[in-house]
Amino acid sequence: MPRLRDLGFSIGVLPTGPANALTDVPGVRVGHTTLVEGHGALRVGEGPVRTGVTAIHPHEGSVFRDTVPAAIGILNGAGEITGRSQIDEYGLLESPIVLTNTLSVGVAHRATVDWLVANEGMADDFVIPVVAETYDGFLNDIAGQHVREAHVHAALDSATGGPIAEGNVGGGTGMALFQLKGGIGTSSRIVEVGGTAHTVGVLVQGNYGRRHQLRVDGVPVGRYVTDLLPVRNSPEAKEGSIVVVIGTDLPLSDRQLARLARRGMLGIARTGSVAGHGSGDLLLAFSNAPSVRVPRPGPAWDRRVDPWVVAPRLHDVYIDLVFEAVVEATEEAILNALVAAETMVGRDGNTLFGLPHDRLRAAMQRYGTAFR
Amino acid sequence: MPRLRDLGFSIGVLPTGPANALTDVPGVRVGHTTLVEGHGALRVGEGPVRTGVTAIHPHEGSVFRDTVPAAIGILNGAGEITGRSQIDEYGLLESPIVLTNTLSVGVAHRATVDWLVANEGMADDFVIPVVAETYDGFLNDIAGQHVREAHVHAALDSATGGPIAEGNVGGGTGMALFQLKGGIGTSSRIVEVGGTAHTVGVLVQGNYGRRHQLRVDGVPVGRYVTDLLPVRNSPEAKEGSIVVVIGTDLPLSDRQLARLARRGMLGIARTGSVAGHGSGDLLLAFSNAPSVRVPRPGPAWDRRVDPWVVAPRLHDVYIDLVFEAVVEATEEAILNALVAAETMVGRDGNTLFGLPHDRLRAAMQRYGTAFR
Amino acid sequence: MPRLRDLGFSIGVLPTGPANALTDVPGVRVGHTTLVEGHGALRVGEGPVRTGVTAIHPHEGSVFRDTVPAAIGILNGAGEITGRSQIDEYGLLESPIVLTNTLSVGVAHRATVDWLVANEGMADDFVIPVVAETYDGFLNDIAGQHVREAHVHAALDSATGGPIAEGNVGGGTGMALFQLKGGIGTSSRIVEVGGTAHTVGVLVQGNYGRRHQLRVDGVPVGRYVTDLLPVRNSPEAKEGSIVVVIGTDLPLSDRQLARLARRGMLGIARTGSVAGHGSGDLLLAFSNAPSVRVPRPGPAWDRRVDPWVVAPRLHDVYIDLVFEAVVEATEEAILNALVAAETMVGRDGNTLFGLPHDRLRAAMQRYGTAFR
Amino acid sequence: MPRLRDLGFSIGVLPTGPANALTDVPGVRVGHTTLVEGHGALRVGEGPVRTGVTAIHPHEGSVFRDTVPAAIGILNGAGEITGRSQIDEYGLLESPIVLTNTLSVGVAHRATVDWLVANEGMADDFVIPVVAETYDGFLNDIAGQHVREAHVHAALDSATGGPIAEGNVGGGTGMALFQLKGGIGTSSRIVEVGGTAHTVGVLVQGNYGRRHQLRVDGVPVGRYVTDLLPVRNSPEAKEGSIVVVIGTDLPLSDRQLARLARRGMLGIARTGSVAGHGSGDLLLAFSNAPSVRVPRPGPAWDRRVDPWVVAPRLHDVYIDLVFEAVVEATEEAILNALVAAETMVGRDGNTLFGLPHDRLRAAMQRYGTAFR
Repeated sequence: MPRLRDLGFSIGVLPTGPANALTDVPGVRVGHTTLVEGHGALRVGEGPVRTGVTAIHPHEGSVFRDTVPAAIGILNGAGEITGRSQIDEYGLLESPIVLTNTLSVGVAHRATVDWLVANEGMADDFVIPVVAETYDGFLNDIAGQHVREAHVHAALDSATGGPIAEGNVGGGTGMALFQLKGGIGTSSRIVEVGGTAHTVGVLVQGNYGRRHQLRVDGVPVGRYVTDLLPVRNSPEAKEGSIVVVIGTDLPLSDRQLARLARRGMLGIARTGSVAGHGSGDLLLAFSNAPSVRVPRPGPAWDRRVDPWVVAPRLHDVYIDLVFEAVVEATEEAILNALVAAETMVGRDGNTLFGLPHDRLRAAMQRYGTAFR
Repeated sequence: MPRLRDLGFSIGVLPTGPANALTDVPGVRVGHTTLVEGHGALRVGEGPVRTGVTAIHPHEGSVFRDTVPAAIGILNGAGEITGRSQIDEYGLLESPIVLTNTLSVGVAHRATVDWLVANEGMADDFVIPVVAETYDGFLNDIAGQHVREAHVHAALDSATGGPIAEGNVGGGTGMALFQLKGGIGTSSRIVEVGGTAHTVGVLVQGNYGRRHQLRVDGVPVGRYVTDLLPVRNSPEAKEGSIVVVIGTDLPLSDRQLARLARRGMLGIARTGSVAGHGSGDLLLAFSNAPSVRVPRPGPAWDRRVDPWVVAPRLHDVYIDLVFEAVVEATEEAILNALVAAETMVGRDGNTLFGLPHDRLRAAMQRYGTAFR
Repeated sequence: MPRLRDLGFSIGVLPTGPANALTDVPGVRVGHTTLVEGHGALRVGEGPVRTGVTAIHPHEGSVFRDTVPAAIGILNGAGEITGRSQIDEYGLLESPIVLTNTLSVGVAHRATVDWLVANEGMADDFVIPVVAETYDGFLNDIAGQHVREAHVHAALDSATGGPIAEGNVGGGTGMALFQLKGGIGTSSRIVEVGGTAHTVGVLVQGNYGRRHQLRVDGVPVGRYVTDLLPVRNSPEAKEGSIVVVIGTDLPLSDRQLARLARRGMLGIARTGSVAGHGSGDLLLAFSNAPSVRVPRPGPAWDRRVDPWVVAPRLHDVYIDLVFEAVVEATEEAILNALVAAETMVGRDGNTLFGLPHDRLRAAMQRYGTAFR
Repeated sequence: MPRLRDLGFSIGVLPTGPANALTDVPGVRVGHTTLVEGHGALRVGEGPVRTGVTAIHPHEGSVFRDTVPAAIGILNGAGEITGRSQIDEYGLLESPIVLTNTLSVGVAHRATVDWLVANEGMADDFVIPVVAETYDGFLNDIAGQHVREAHVHAALDSATGGPIAEGNVGGGTGMALFQLKGGIGTSSRIVEVGGTAHTVGVLVQGNYGRRHQLRVDGVPVGRYVTDLLPVRNSPEAKEGSIVVVIGTDLPLSDRQLARLARRGMLGIARTGSVAGHGSGDLLLAFSNAPSVRVPRPGPAWDRRVDPWVVAPRLHDVYIDLVFEAVVEATEEAILNALVAAETMVGRDGNTLFGLPHDRLRAAMQRYGTAFR
């Protein structure tokens, strides 16, 4: 799949990592299960199916065993991200992050529990999984509950580093962006702090926006690409949402990660979003620096834990560069989703069109020398 | 089951409703599914089973069709209540409230979606269910996932008004309070505002506390009842939690309901809790006054909605009486759970003892004339 | 002073009010006190003085007597807005809004109290004033405390409707934007809801940003105007901030106004801000619709208040247009501040340059037909 | 002044520090300025005066130069604590904490700025002071603004370690508790973690509560002491508030300090408070452990700061003991204020009675053997 940079455009000034992806953050692993089956009229429980699951492991090991600092930000709350209260309280993430459709949060939650029981032997322990969602019912038989536990396990088990498939994959399979086809996108930035290079990576499941709002690197592309509106044979129930996952190997505290999550909102804003009423615009940021991980304490009856946690964090006065990285990478991740996603026909023949790359180029070129 | 008042004790000064229960709030319906099966050693997936589901419908109709103002408060976040972000954003509750064990949040979420699809024909709509949990793994084969969809549906379908079973029932079946047996408890208060009587009701799923902390109407009962500690043949993984559901027929706004949720915390405090590190102390408050309900708008394609919502609310200067009612009813609901819960033997022979009523009486009587 | 539209540029698609100003919201009144005195080296307590006060009355009467729904949003908290806790709790604003420099918050607070004592006879009552700030110490003898009570009173007393002076006036006198001269800016939008036209107005005290970040309607002007950097003979202590005041005559609840405040953040983002570490990016939104005002209750001893407040609010499903209005007006208000502000020399000869309008035009024209 | 323990009562089970005061936390210094002048009818600007200032330095040095982790909690927001947004953002406190009356926040803010300019040479820097308040207008000519800058400076300059005067002193001079005389109170607890003893100290400026609510160690004293109501010749305007300052030398993060602030709320609850509508119940917690202090970075132009902050924190699994300490010390600090405060006659002959110690003893003894 081509990406924004393949078309000759890029966002901001900071360098990207080698894959320009969340997985440039060492250890982060991403896996997709993509479910596309059937055509024609909706028959609840039968299809058509246009959905999936994306799973993110924050580091190379078990985040259940080695928890990481994390924080959640909410730009507009019309969505679900489970585990929020515990992350707020502990400042730690203890679960892989699973992205899917709105009505499959339950099965993804259950599947994550079962996966941890099987893989971490946690039958005598407990866990609060992190599952987030956006709504794909315009293309997908969402009430039909086609995501099964095995699909979630497959995403968790297949997750790897390296380049990440974008567009109509995983949790993003059936999603829309600016009334065009949307889905999964990713990007990264390298920041140099204190003489060391660190990576900030972003992955989005993008599913929001009205056409006229769309901006690409500031250019109001949505004012020029006014056709290619969705083919609606059955109506939309929900206006869309976005989940943004921000990872870094910089040692940061949960408070600092909350600041990063807020900067993700600014990246969303730059694409033209006004964070619509029905949108669940949810952001999660984590640091997987080994120096800030907190090993899971034994259960209450066996807490031979060192009473002191000693973790470094970046001095806040150096954080602006990290903020820039988050804003740039979030904006580019969204645009990568838009560029990668291809036209998809779903339930009842409902159709979302991929943004034709020549149309994007043409719109950008109206803005003259800067984009030629 | 006897209740606190049957033993001659009561909390505070305000009158209770006829059932001294959340269901005194007109229209509120509560249903339990209680699962108790098997004995002996834990075999994950087989049992023993000591768990269940409690479902609350906020009014006599469909809360999906007629949403109600609501707010969530978090005293300590080591727990899960799904739907929080949307309730924060909209100030509205659109789902029945389902209480269960920590690892069954997923199945309860899925079951609630399916129940709404079946009962509300929402195949083309979406919903964000509200499911909250506490941990029962000390008695229950929690990793065995014994709560099934049908159990959740049974709780939703069987919910009625009138008296509410307390103690070892529903979501509270396997829970602990102050290292004694805990579970479900409820209480209510009548407040007169502006010449009209209104009801404040509380239901708790109580599962927290160390023995020495326990206070009953201020009396440090936990200092006198120091025996009857849990029989532990396998250890505890989690320190306990509480979910508090506060309902009222007073017309209140979401902001005011957030204030009520915070007063529920003060009721918890009066029983001696310090809101321990591992405790998920989660509160949800709603008003079901017909005048404040917001009918579900049609989906995006069919929004012939009146652009103005006109809702009354109590003037804040009269709210202190409501605060008193919430604090009193929360404290009494917790104590009702403690009084109603009977000794239970669970997995591996682990045992939680019911608080013997004569021991409670004896401890209270040390405090002299006031309790004779 | 010319404004952005006088140069041929505009933001977004919604129509503005007659003055394109916060004061297009009927009843809103704004007053400035501008203090510019002295030249040369800093002598603390003597000058040079480059500061001031801007005062906003939310409606035509006394906001102390007739309070209005309001909410505060924080994009980055490195600043002060007093009264925040009470506005969070009550959802009401009871004080005029006073903007000044960081170290004059105290005098402005005291002056507002005294003004209310004198004008509202509140000697037996209490008030929590709302005072917000940004830092002007690069040009101004800020430690010299040149804002006096009388200056605050003058701003409060002189406030009127109609066009609002922009740039180097009032609280914005000594402020910077994108390392150019900044200050006060304003804009408004008209939204039609339910057959009626309503106004959303924004006023900013803008004082943030690094040059390379600056975007005007998406165009990265800051990459082309790289000269005209500040003349620094003494260094900057703080990186800048912005206060955004959003007013509307739409009947909205405090929860909805909190949503508007969050959209103001998106408007800030569009100008290129990443909400830097040292920036106090603070937003306050209010509705002055007569139907949502809450008359001040008498003091505790004399509360013959109707126990029911009945207020309309816009149905949330119609709010997206209002969100668009807030984003557009915030972006344009900031750019109006930038366009209006003229070069200013301050303490120690420190200088901030006004953005030359021909340079802005030239940068915009690089972006081709769209801006010709 | 006698204290609760001098009467034979105590709260909880943990040991106190040597002075049973916030100043048991090594380095913490507290100073009071007490203003009591005049008698008779209120003449605004002349008196009678019953007010003051309490100043707290978090450690033995300059908190402006060596900032400390801190967090603010709000139980009910009808009050003011300046600096909240910055503490939320940075997790650091950079100002001494100043407590005074509601309408003197402005002068205290200004005075703190001037004090830092004079003492820290911060003319080229900036600061966001922390000033909190409760309302003393029932006894005091509060609109007369009798707190002057010099009074604030005196409190800041005179602050020392060791025992702290309680009752009618400093910011607490004119305050009420449960319709009796209230004011300043303090208490501390020693906690042993990881083989080392640490101190948790609390200081309150207590000014809230209705009589019937008052509980002392669980005993409903307010039901027995029903006389000694305030003599009201002029009415009350505000229902009262409390500021709670929690300090510790345990190394804790800002997130953990936010948890401590929430536990202070539970201590307030145990005294019977329902956190009334008009109450500003505000809590601030800080750690002054040398290992967690963050030296003030130079200004922007001179930031030769190590990019990594390495701070230890207590492992959260050990924090419950600290929570118990906060709850106990908060409850006892409030009761110490009540016990120490003596009857005071103020403006218009308005009178608040001190709680007679024999009446307290008599009420406690109704609760039998436990209190004999």
